[in-house]
Amino acid sequence: MKRTLLILTLILASLATLAQDGARQHRIVMQLTSGDTLAHKNLMKQFKNMLEAAPTARIEVVCHGPGMDLLMTDRSIVRGKLKEFAAQGVTFLACNNTIRERQLDHAKVIPEAGHVKAGIIHIMERQEDGWSYIKAGF
Amino acid sequence: MKRTLLILTLILASLATLAQDGARQHRIVMQLTSGDTLAHKNLMKQFKNMLEAAPTARIEVVCHGPGMDLLMTDRSIVRGKLKEFAAQGVTFLACNNTIRERQLDHAKVIPEAGHVKAGIIHIMERQEDGWSYIKAGF
Amino acid sequence: MKRTLLILTLILASLATLAQDGARQHRIVMQLTSGDTLAHKNLMKQFKNMLEAAPTARIEVVCHGPGMDLLMTDRSIVRGKLKEFAAQGVTFLACNNTIRERQLDHAKVIPEAGHVKAGIIHIMERQEDGWSYIKAGF
Repeated sequence: MKRTLLILTLILASLATLAQDGARQHRIVMQLTSGDTLAHKNLMKQFKNMLEAAPTARIEVVCHGPGMDLLMTDRSIVRGKLKEFAAQGVTFLACNNTIRERQLDHAKVIPEAGHVKAGIIHIMERQEDGWSYIKAGF
Repeated sequence: MKRTLLILTLILASLATLAQDGARQHRIVMQLTSGDTLAHKNLMKQFKNMLEAAPTARIEVVCHGPGMDLLMTDRSIVRGKLKEFAAQGVTFLACNNTIRERQLDHAKVIPEAGHVKAGIIHIMERQEDGWSYIKAGF
Repeated sequence: MKRTLLILTLILASLATLAQDGARQHRIVMQLTSGDTLAHKNLMKQFKNMLEAAPTARIEVVCHGPGMDLLMTDRSIVRGKLKEFAAQGVTFLACNNTIRERQLDHAKVIPEAGHVKAGIIHIMERQEDGWSYIKAGF
């Protein structure tokens, strides 16, 4: 009996830990599909606010479609900010399908960006892993 | 043995209850970032349809960025509807970061609205608690 | 003791199976509210990319508001593609509330589409069942 109760206690304790960790470690995947520079500027403000309110949150931004403009050195209007936020831990992800379809120059993607094969698939998988999802833009 | 089985039964029963409650009590957090009055009118239609289809659903609407226009007495074009839906249980939440950044007048936020420090953080936390998320607008 | 351990093992095994199944079977519900034909064309590209990257994913597209234009035979600019993707397993769902409110002709909804009473309620329920959510459009 004692051993059984011990095992049950361990199971409940690990469930409680999981629940607590979930509450503590915020993870958010943002989707940017807009090429609107106003949406890009607004996103920078949101990063600032999010990092202030939840400094340890993991933040990923998946850019695809016209949203890839954010990450192109020759198109982005917030190049300096991207460097700053990347240094603070925000992850920028470029969609390789978009780069191919829009015939963008791989060499002009900002060096701070990581790459994913298909933006939407990545966002889907993050949600499956329990990340919160926010669609950026207006 | 009997006691162990009893404990296991209780654990399974509470998990089943949790699952059932989850299915029964709909909880939805909507994000409005658009200042487009057409999007605001459309949102009112959606509330009506949602309350008809799921009268006991908990509905929260987080307004930030240009979406804060919905909740400003001097800008909202659906002021009367907001009062009606608030009376029916829809929760409207104003983003304090937006109010500060857009230098909006706190006194002109509709009295029915609650406040959150950072809109996106609130939406993230709701998703962490199992709420469904809908981005409003087109 | 032995029986208790067996029961615990079975519980843990079923939890593990659930977790594994969740990882394997991708399920994604997309929301289209935009009448912008550029958004409709873009959605077709996304289906192609998603089916290539995750051929067994279950994909549902809920069309409501101006997004219903995608599914109207007299308005859709991607009629042929819809047929193709429906044949490949993509599910298109028309919102009956929108059809009534916009006074659309039921007979002109593409025959490949299914119907839901209220688009948002359906999307909410899918998320409650663990589906990932993507808002389409820019």
